Amino acid sequence: MKATQDYIHSHKDEMVDELIEFLKIPSVSADQKYKGDVRRAAEWVSKQLTEAGGQNVEIMETPGHPIVYGDRIIDASLPTVLVYGHYDVQPPDPMELWDSPPFEPVIKDGNIYARGACDDKGQMYMHVKAFQAMMSAGELPCNVKFVFEGEEEVGSDNLEDFLRDQQDRLRCDVVLVSDTSIIANDTPSITVGLRGLSYVEVEVTGPNRDLHSGTYGGAVANPINALCEMIASLKDDDGHITIPGFYDKVQTVSTADRKAMNDAPWDRDEYERDLDIATVAGEKGYTTLERASIRPTLDVNGMWGGYTGEGAKTVLPSKAYAKISMRLVPDQSSDEITEMFKKHFESIAPDGVRVEVKPHHGGEAAVTPTDTPEYQAAALAMEETFGRKPIPARGGGSIPIVALFESILGVKTVLMGFGLDSDNIHSPNEKYGIFNFHRGIETIPYFYHHYSKLKA
Amino acid sequence: MKATQDYIHSHKDEMVDELIEFLKIPSVSADQKYKGDVRRAAEWVSKQLTEAGGQNVEIMETPGHPIVYGDRIIDASLPTVLVYGHYDVQPPDPMELWDSPPFEPVIKDGNIYARGACDDKGQMYMHVKAFQAMMSAGELPCNVKFVFEGEEEVGSDNLEDFLRDQQDRLRCDVVLVSDTSIIANDTPSITVGLRGLSYVEVEVTGPNRDLHSGTYGGAVANPINALCEMIASLKDDDGHITIPGFYDKVQTVSTADRKAMNDAPWDRDEYERDLDIATVAGEKGYTTLERASIRPTLDVNGMWGGYTGEGAKTVLPSKAYAKISMRLVPDQSSDEITEMFKKHFESIAPDGVRVEVKPHHGGEAAVTPTDTPEYQAAALAMEETFGRKPIPARGGGSIPIVALFESILGVKTVLMGFGLDSDNIHSPNEKYGIFNFHRGIETIPYFYHHYSKLKA
Repeated sequence: MKATQDYIHSHKDEMVDELIEFLKIPSVSADQKYKGDVRRAAEWVSKQLTEAGGQNVEIMETPGHPIVYGDRIIDASLPTVLVYGHYDVQPPDPMELWDSPPFEPVIKDGNIYARGACDDKGQMYMHVKAFQAMMSAGELPCNVKFVFEGEEEVGSDNLEDFLRDQQDRLRCDVVLVSDTSIIANDTPSITVGLRGLSYVEVEVTGPNRDLHSGTYGGAVANPINALCEMIASLKDDDGHITIPGFYDKVQTVSTADRKAMNDAPWDRDEYERDLDIATVAGEKGYTTLERASIRPTLDVNGMWGGYTGEGAKTVLPSKAYAKISMRLVPDQSSDEITEMFKKHFESIAPDGVRVEVKPHHGGEAAVTPTDTPEYQAAALAMEETFGRKPIPARGGGSIPIVALFESILGVKTVLMGFGLDSDNIHSPNEKYGIFNFHRGIETIPYFYHHYSKLKA
Repeated sequence: MKATQDYIHSHKDEMVDELIEFLKIPSVSADQKYKGDVRRAAEWVSKQLTEAGGQNVEIMETPGHPIVYGDRIIDASLPTVLVYGHYDVQPPDPMELWDSPPFEPVIKDGNIYARGACDDKGQMYMHVKAFQAMMSAGELPCNVKFVFEGEEEVGSDNLEDFLRDQQDRLRCDVVLVSDTSIIANDTPSITVGLRGLSYVEVEVTGPNRDLHSGTYGGAVANPINALCEMIASLKDDDGHITIPGFYDKVQTVSTADRKAMNDAPWDRDEYERDLDIATVAGEKGYTTLERASIRPTLDVNGMWGGYTGEGAKTVLPSKAYAKISMRLVPDQSSDEITEMFKKHFESIAPDGVRVEVKPHHGGEAAVTPTDTPEYQAAALAMEETFGRKPIPARGGGSIPIVALFESILGVKTVLMGFGLDSDNIHSPNEKYGIFNFHRGIETIPYFYHHYSKLKA
């Protein structure tokens, strides 16, 4: 891989320039007003993939945003790596908290600041560049297929049908994804666990119109107060979720595994200082690392109702809304939990209000073993570039497609990400370290190299 | 008053046209972007008052929006009525629920639809027109002073200083206000009780930035969940408010008064049908009429935090906000209750979040006796035009200036309003009946007439 690394070394700046060009396209999949930009991003990706040496590159239509496919089959008898990534990004709100505009990338202190810098444009684009480097150096050691989707941030609704329809074309031995974090730039890690997700939107309706809170206050149920009561009742004083049956299928983690997890380098003071909180908080009986990985959660992601403008308005509103998500762990089923939530939430509506629960999207939790060729290949690759063995870590986020790849394509996924938890993904001032971007590009070819050998 | 009534009768349409002109000025006092419009409304009022026969008409500056003053002193030995009203209006949000634009008045089914139609432009303007009618007919029976402010919807912050500074100029025998409702167009009533108000805005801060709810969810306190818990805990299962000391000073209403109140014509089915609610709801042990008048309340008027756009965003937000108001009854003190709320709310903040409580504005509750010349004059005036005696009624809203007039000018206020509870004040599709507008203009001169005689 010497020639490949040389190629990477001599093209570092140009790779950053290209990423910046990519980040300027506001491919926000959640909001229809960016529909054209999402397509523009797909077109940009297909062009880059073709230039990198990709064949059969195609923008494939779905009922939603398109999927970019491309491949390079050098020898049908060699193993095939399927690279998955997504070119869509989270909405940039709240805009006023960004130090620089989300779609005008800025380099500061070794980081690129922009929406999507880390999640996932920066990490996805590493794969295009690593592939190009291997192609240029004539060192591609196996076959590769690329699937870059534009709906990851809205639940990958059309990916399942795509995988089913294209099963033959997508046949592969392993899926490689960079959409996760390492513990620190000097502490590489590989994500071996992900939480599932159940995401719902609730609407509480009181009176049929906004009322004057003086004339009607006290006599008519207020949907905001009602929604607060309902949400508050979803957890008990110990932080346990009260939805009947919620924990029934939660996999118990062994004492040894919990011990290993809590031995990972982690500094509570630094964590609290970084977030400027007086104390961490969560489910009783579990440490912060456990709460953020092996335990299910329930968070309100957004809530609104009534008058939210300047000054005071004495309104008793007609409606209140909340977006609520639950992170799930093996073996909770996303659909089952969503149904449980819906049933429970509707049952606890106080007198005088009506409740509607709409499921948004979900995904299943996953834990991957470490004694496989793909995990070993990733570990060896990281050791080559970081100079030390990566730690297997369970992450708190969700990449529902991991379970899909397993069930439809019958293959395991390696989550070899290069971000940091502090990269502010889904938040204002998202960033991605230029170190991390380059280190990812350097590491990926080693994965191909080791995987081809171990799998052979 | 024959000539006065004739004048009114022959100018009815023109009066409506003028009100429509007035309603087109978006004098929203809560939002600085309407500052120029608020002033334009003050200028319009001063012009109309002058044309009606007002003297010493002046736009008087305050640190906020101006106050329009004018008077007509016909004989220093006669009684003086001070008319109070306000030319500012509530914000029109939520705009999307209006059937026609809030500042483009529309007449439909005998009602004028526009923000401020009833509260209080329509009712305020009746006084200008009634005064003009008496002047034109040469039948003004006493002295009159007008105080029209532009900050009623934001707490009348500068009125107190104005009243103190202008005590001499404002000397009067009674204050007459039309900013309340009658029970129905065939059931006149006079408001003899008002609730006080304490209005606060709360800000809950968790982490210093929005976080990814997968990475941090379960381990870091979520400010929206925290705010929900705090708000939910403010009432117990019986709907009683749990703030320590909240009920200490609440005046007990006699069994006889409660009985009289519950004998008023009121139809629960119709009330529930009108609001499209399955059932009324509120504090245990009290009827709807009691809950909406003689009992204090706590309502969330607005709440927001996190992602509120289209689709799903898995954010653990940094901040959550709520606007909360409490309606108070005699002898609760607005300042005391605000302070109690602040202390209590800050004390119940869960681990890991910080809470800030900012007082908005407040006002004291008031109950007026019915055995006074001013109440009797109002009752006789309504009987002349409605053909039946008005019912003394306690309202649920707040007009904090009533307590101010009593403490600073030493006079009682008569609340002779002509709106209906169904006029959607503070809501989309606010309206005011043309019947009510004209009936008010017809009734006001009779008040002057009877008051002058009773007071003489």
